[in-house]
Amino acid sequence: MNTFGRAFRLTSFGESHGPAIGGVIDGMEPGIEIDLDKVQAQLDRRRPGQSSITTQRREADRVEILSGMFEGKTTGTPIGFLVRNADHHSQDYDNLRSVLRPSHADYTYFAKYGIRDHRGGGRTSARETIARVVGGAFAMQALERLGVTIYAYTSQVGDIVVDKPYTELDLSLIESNPVRCPDPEVAATMEALIKEVQRDGDTIGGVITCVAKGVPAGWGEPVFNKLHAMLASAMMSINAAKGFDYGLGFAGVGRRGSEMADAFIPGSKPGQERVRTATNHSGGIQGGISNGEDIYFRVAFKPVATLLRDISTIDLDGNPATVHARGRHDPCVLPRAVPIVESMTALTLYDAYLLNE
Amino acid sequence: MNTFGRAFRLTSFGESHGPAIGGVIDGMEPGIEIDLDKVQAQLDRRRPGQSSITTQRREADRVEILSGMFEGKTTGTPIGFLVRNADHHSQDYDNLRSVLRPSHADYTYFAKYGIRDHRGGGRTSARETIARVVGGAFAMQALERLGVTIYAYTSQVGDIVVDKPYTELDLSLIESNPVRCPDPEVAATMEALIKEVQRDGDTIGGVITCVAKGVPAGWGEPVFNKLHAMLASAMMSINAAKGFDYGLGFAGVGRRGSEMADAFIPGSKPGQERVRTATNHSGGIQGGISNGEDIYFRVAFKPVATLLRDISTIDLDGNPATVHARGRHDPCVLPRAVPIVESMTALTLYDAYLLNE
Amino acid sequence: MNTFGRAFRLTSFGESHGPAIGGVIDGMEPGIEIDLDKVQAQLDRRRPGQSSITTQRREADRVEILSGMFEGKTTGTPIGFLVRNADHHSQDYDNLRSVLRPSHADYTYFAKYGIRDHRGGGRTSARETIARVVGGAFAMQALERLGVTIYAYTSQVGDIVVDKPYTELDLSLIESNPVRCPDPEVAATMEALIKEVQRDGDTIGGVITCVAKGVPAGWGEPVFNKLHAMLASAMMSINAAKGFDYGLGFAGVGRRGSEMADAFIPGSKPGQERVRTATNHSGGIQGGISNGEDIYFRVAFKPVATLLRDISTIDLDGNPATVHARGRHDPCVLPRAVPIVESMTALTLYDAYLLNE
Amino acid sequence: MNTFGRAFRLTSFGESHGPAIGGVIDGMEPGIEIDLDKVQAQLDRRRPGQSSITTQRREADRVEILSGMFEGKTTGTPIGFLVRNADHHSQDYDNLRSVLRPSHADYTYFAKYGIRDHRGGGRTSARETIARVVGGAFAMQALERLGVTIYAYTSQVGDIVVDKPYTELDLSLIESNPVRCPDPEVAATMEALIKEVQRDGDTIGGVITCVAKGVPAGWGEPVFNKLHAMLASAMMSINAAKGFDYGLGFAGVGRRGSEMADAFIPGSKPGQERVRTATNHSGGIQGGISNGEDIYFRVAFKPVATLLRDISTIDLDGNPATVHARGRHDPCVLPRAVPIVESMTALTLYDAYLLNE
Repeated sequence: MNTFGRAFRLTSFGESHGPAIGGVIDGMEPGIEIDLDKVQAQLDRRRPGQSSITTQRREADRVEILSGMFEGKTTGTPIGFLVRNADHHSQDYDNLRSVLRPSHADYTYFAKYGIRDHRGGGRTSARETIARVVGGAFAMQALERLGVTIYAYTSQVGDIVVDKPYTELDLSLIESNPVRCPDPEVAATMEALIKEVQRDGDTIGGVITCVAKGVPAGWGEPVFNKLHAMLASAMMSINAAKGFDYGLGFAGVGRRGSEMADAFIPGSKPGQERVRTATNHSGGIQGGISNGEDIYFRVAFKPVATLLRDISTIDLDGNPATVHARGRHDPCVLPRAVPIVESMTALTLYDAYLLNE
Repeated sequence: MNTFGRAFRLTSFGESHGPAIGGVIDGMEPGIEIDLDKVQAQLDRRRPGQSSITTQRREADRVEILSGMFEGKTTGTPIGFLVRNADHHSQDYDNLRSVLRPSHADYTYFAKYGIRDHRGGGRTSARETIARVVGGAFAMQALERLGVTIYAYTSQVGDIVVDKPYTELDLSLIESNPVRCPDPEVAATMEALIKEVQRDGDTIGGVITCVAKGVPAGWGEPVFNKLHAMLASAMMSINAAKGFDYGLGFAGVGRRGSEMADAFIPGSKPGQERVRTATNHSGGIQGGISNGEDIYFRVAFKPVATLLRDISTIDLDGNPATVHARGRHDPCVLPRAVPIVESMTALTLYDAYLLNE
Repeated sequence: MNTFGRAFRLTSFGESHGPAIGGVIDGMEPGIEIDLDKVQAQLDRRRPGQSSITTQRREADRVEILSGMFEGKTTGTPIGFLVRNADHHSQDYDNLRSVLRPSHADYTYFAKYGIRDHRGGGRTSARETIARVVGGAFAMQALERLGVTIYAYTSQVGDIVVDKPYTELDLSLIESNPVRCPDPEVAATMEALIKEVQRDGDTIGGVITCVAKGVPAGWGEPVFNKLHAMLASAMMSINAAKGFDYGLGFAGVGRRGSEMADAFIPGSKPGQERVRTATNHSGGIQGGISNGEDIYFRVAFKPVATLLRDISTIDLDGNPATVHARGRHDPCVLPRAVPIVESMTALTLYDAYLLNE
Repeated sequence: MNTFGRAFRLTSFGESHGPAIGGVIDGMEPGIEIDLDKVQAQLDRRRPGQSSITTQRREADRVEILSGMFEGKTTGTPIGFLVRNADHHSQDYDNLRSVLRPSHADYTYFAKYGIRDHRGGGRTSARETIARVVGGAFAMQALERLGVTIYAYTSQVGDIVVDKPYTELDLSLIESNPVRCPDPEVAATMEALIKEVQRDGDTIGGVITCVAKGVPAGWGEPVFNKLHAMLASAMMSINAAKGFDYGLGFAGVGRRGSEMADAFIPGSKPGQERVRTATNHSGGIQGGISNGEDIYFRVAFKPVATLLRDISTIDLDGNPATVHARGRHDPCVLPRAVPIVESMTALTLYDAYLLNE
C-alpha cells in the first residue's frame, strides 16, 4: 500500500527510471495558504550533488501542482503533483539486469513479486522520497499555522556524536554546513570522516535527531496508535533506517523510575491551561498522547550498501557474479535524510492533529 | 482506534476496573486448529504475582471464547473473547480521584478527553494487554503451521546486559528463571538488581530482544508498510516502550558499508529456492521485505512511573498534591513484557503474511 | 471484515448457535450520557415473537456493557458488549448438516471458506443484527444531542404500498401496529396479507422507508464517500436487502430536469444560516453532502428463503436432498427489519458527522 | 477521502478547470499485460461530443502513464497517470462566481468547506470520472485474465424501458447506437425522446443495467462488506445516481419466497465443481458472496440539473439571482455513464477478488 496516514494521507507513485515521481495529498484542510516556493525549497534540500560530500548526480527537480489549489490556497480537494525524471540513465543499470546486489531489496522484491526491475531499484530508489518531501512540505505549512515547528539534524556520523542535548544547541545553525549538524565543530569532524570514507569508496551510517516544538497536549491515541508508534512507523519507513527511540530512549533504560519521572510544575489548571513539567525525559508524549512539551526522537541509519567498489554477489541463476563500481556514490545519506525525517514528522503530526479534531 | 492490523485485526476493549477485558480477532483463516490451553498458558505468562520479583496482585484470568470456533477449529468468522476482571479494587484508587500522576497518561488523557477516569488508568492499565496476548496466541498458532516461531527474552535490566548475540544463547532457557533471560548467570545478576530496586520502592527499565525464525522471503511491503515499520509500530504501542531497532540497529551506525553487507551464498536459485546470506546484519529484512533469515530486533522499556513511594504532583486545580504509595508495585516490567512482545510480533507477522497472500 | 464505519466503528462477532453475540463500539465521543434502558428497548424491538405475525422464537436478549462507560457516560474508550445466546437449539439444525439450502448463503460460504457450519447459518443468522442494533442505539443517542432523529417504517408489503409520501404520514403511529406502518388502514391490509402468506408456509417481501430529520448541511464527502453511497452500503449489508434509492430515486428517472430541481428559498445567507429549498426531490443530499433538508430513502427486501415447507435441494455431494420444514417461520421480515434500518442509518450518520468534524 | 477500494485502490485527483485530472492505481498484481490502447479506448467512450445527442464539448483526453509498468506489464508498484485538461474555459464560468445553482453541489460544498470554487464544480465535475475510467480499464484487463467480462447498457430513458431481461438481448449491440441500448428499436425511441428533451433545453434521467459474467463463487464478504453492498456504494458514488438494486430488486418484493428461491441443479459437487442454479433471481450473490451465476444490477440516474434555460436561484448573500443558460448541455447522461458504471464495477470486482485471495 503506497498510502501513508489516515486522516491526512499521502499516496505516492513513481520509479527513478520512469517518466515521473508524484503523489496525491488528501485530507488537507481547505483555505490554507501554501507558499509553493517553500515546497520547492524543501525539495531542493533533498537533492544530491549540492556539496563535495554528496553524490554528484544532477537533478533539477521541479514540482508541478496539478489540482487542489485555487488562488494560492488549498480547496479541501486532493492535491495531485509530479516531478519529472529529467534523465533516466537506464543504461547505467544494464550491468544490474541479471545480478542481485547484497543488502539491497533486489532479492526480496524478486522473491515477493517474481519480477526483476533492475532499473535503479524501482520503488526503493531514493527518488521515491520526493513525494514524501512534497507532502511533508504541505503538512509543515498547515502545522505552522498551529504553531508547530520541526527541526531535524545529523547528531551522529559513524562514531562521532553530538553529545549535547538539542536544548543546548543553536538549531538555526543546521543549514550552516553540509552535514546539517548544528554544532559547527562536530560538523567539521563529521565532514572529515565522510570524506575519508568517500576516498575508500565506502559508506558510513549515523543518527538523526528530530525535535517538534509547539505540539499542544492531546495529539495521539491511547492504545495502538500512540503518537510515538505513529512516529516510529513513519521513521522506519525511510530507506536505511534501522532504529528509533524517543525521549531518553535506549539511554534511559538504565535509570531508576524515581529519576525519570517528569514532575508537573504547579500553578496551571489542567484541561484549561498548559501544564508544564520540570523535566522532559518522556520526550513530550505520555501514554501515547502529546503533553505539550517538546517531542524529540532519534533515528538510526545504517551505512548504505551501494559502494564505489566491486562487490561479489550472485546472479538470477544463483551463480557467483560481481556488481561493478559505478561512477557515483553517496558516502553518507544522513545529510540528505534530514529533510526526509522532517517531512515524515510533519506528515505524522498533521495526521495526528486531524485525527484528534 | 482500538484496532491493530489490516488483514488480520485485533480490536480490543476494557478497563482494568470495569467488568471485563476482551476483544475481537478478525481475519483468521478458516480451518486452523486452536489449542485453547496454549492460549490460556500464554495468558498466564503475562500474569503478575508469579514470583518474588513481580507485583503481588492475584489475577485468575480465564479467557472465554464467544464465537468463531467450531469443533476446535476456526471458522473464518470473528473470534470474540473476554476475561472477567475478578476484583475491581476501585476503592484502592480513590486517593487518585483528584490528582494527576507524573509520567503517567493521567494529564494527557484529561487534556484529550476532558475526563478523569481515575480507576487504575483506564485503557493505559497493564490489563489492556490481555487482549493482545489472546490475539497473539491465536496468531502464533496460525504462524506455527507456516513454520514460524517467535522467541522474546530480557536482554538488559538497568545496566546489566546480555552481551552475547541471540545466536549464542540457548533460547530454551528463557522460562528457566523469573527474569526470562536465557543466560542463567546474567539472569541471576538481573534478579539481584531488581530486588535491590524493589527494596528502594523504585523501578528499573531494560531491553527485550525478540527473534522470529522461519519467516519466508516476501513478507512486508516496499514503501510505507515495510515489515520493520509495522514491527516498530507494534512494539512502540506497548506501554513503557521507548525505543526499537532491528538487525545491528543503533550499534551498526558506526560501521562501514563494506562491513555491513550480507553476502549471498551462491548455489540457490533466487525465486525458486531459499537463498541464504553468509551474515545477517540486516536482521532478516531488506527493503522492508523479509529475506528468509532470522528477524531480530530490540525494544527498550523505561522504568515505570508507579513507585512504592510518595510522589509530589498536582491536583485537577493545578495545586501541589501527593500520590501516596500503594501496597503493591512492579519494580521491573521486563519479565511480564516478554509475552506481550511475542504477542505483538505474532499479530504483526500474521498480518504481514495475509497481506502478502 | 466485521467492522463497519471509519471514524465511528462497530466491530461485531457471534454466531446464533455459539455462546454469545457481541461487539465493540469504537470512536464514540467522551462524555455522552447513555440511557441503557433505551438501548435495551431498541434491542427488544428487533426480537421476534412479539406478535401473531412474527416468528415465535423466544429470545430474552439482555445486553451487558463491559467497558467504555463511567458514571453513566461514555469515556471515549471502546464499548465492549455482549448478549448471551440463551438457548442454542443446535439439534434443530442437525437435519441441515449435509444439505445446502437454496437462496441461502450455505453454498457461497462453503465455496469461500471450505467449511459447512450448519448451525443456523453462522454469521448470516438474523441474530448477527443484535450487534448492529446495540451499536445503532449508542449512535442514536449521540445523534439526538445533535438534533437528529431517525424514523423507519414499513412502506410496502408484497404489492400493498403506502402511497402517501412520509410528509403526509403521522410517524408517531409507526409502533401502533405490528407491521410498523404509520398508515393504520394500510397496516391492517398488510397484516392480513402477511397472515395469508403465513398460512401458506410462504414468505413475502417489501420496502422500508427511512427518514432522518435534523441532519445539518455538510455531512458526507464529495467523491467516493458520498453520504448516500455510505447509506446504500449500510442498507445493502442488511440480510435480504435487494435495493436502495433516495430522494425520488427510481421513480424520478422519468421526470424532466426542470421539474426535479429543488429551488433555494431566498433570504438566508449561505454558509451562515440554513438555506432551505422549496421542494426536496433530492432527498436531502446534493453532490454527496447533506443540505439540511430531510434525508429520506427506501430499502427493498426480498421474501426470505426459509419457508414452512419441504424444499428440494442438494447435499454436499451434489445429490438431490430435501430441506424439511421446521417448526417456526417468519413470513415477513419487514417489521423486524425496521429497527435494523434505523440502526444502520444511525451508525452511518454518526460516522459521517465525526468524519466531517 | 478520494480513495476507492481496499486491496485494489484508486486514488483520484483533479478539477475540471485545473491543469490535469489523474490518479494512482495501487494494489495491481505484478506481471499483468496491459493494452494501453484499450485503456484509451475506454476513455474515449466517456467523452462527450460523440454524437448528435450528447454535449458538444470537444475533449481530446490522452492518458499518460507515469509509473508502475515495465516492458508492457504491471510491476506491482503503483500506477500514476494523468490526463491534461486541454482547455480550461474558466471564463465560461465567471457568471457563476457568486451564485449557487439549485440541485448542484454548490451550496453543500460551500456549507462544508467554506469555499466557493465556481470553476465548473470542482470535484463534482463529470471530468472527475476520467480517473475512474482509467482505473477501471486496468481492473478490467486484470479481470479478463480471470474470465470475467462486464457489460453495461442503457435500459431505460424517461419512461421508455427495455422490458426484456438481459438474457434475451444481444449485448454485442450495445455500441451500435448512441444511447448504448442493445435493443435497436427501443434505442431509436429513446434517441427520439432525448432529442425532444434537448430541443426543450431540458434533461431526462434513466436506468443503466449492468451484467458481470464469469465471476466465480466466493467473492464478497458475509457481513458488512457484502459484494452487493460494495457494488451499491460504488454505483451510488457516480454523479446523478439515485438508486441501485440487484437480482429482481425492487420488482421482486411483491413475490412469494416460494417463487423466488433459486433451486440448485443436482450433479455437481459443491466446493469442487461449480454448482449451477436453475434460475437466478438472486442476481448471482447469496449471503453477500458470489455464487458463480451472472451478477446483474440496475442503477437509476436522475435528470441532471444543468439545463439550457435560465434558472432562478440565490447568490452568496442569499438574494435572488439567475443562472444563465450556457452554450452547451447534455440532455441525458445515461450513454456517457455506461462506461463509468462498467469501470466502477470492474474496480469493485477486482477489489473483491483480491480481498478473497
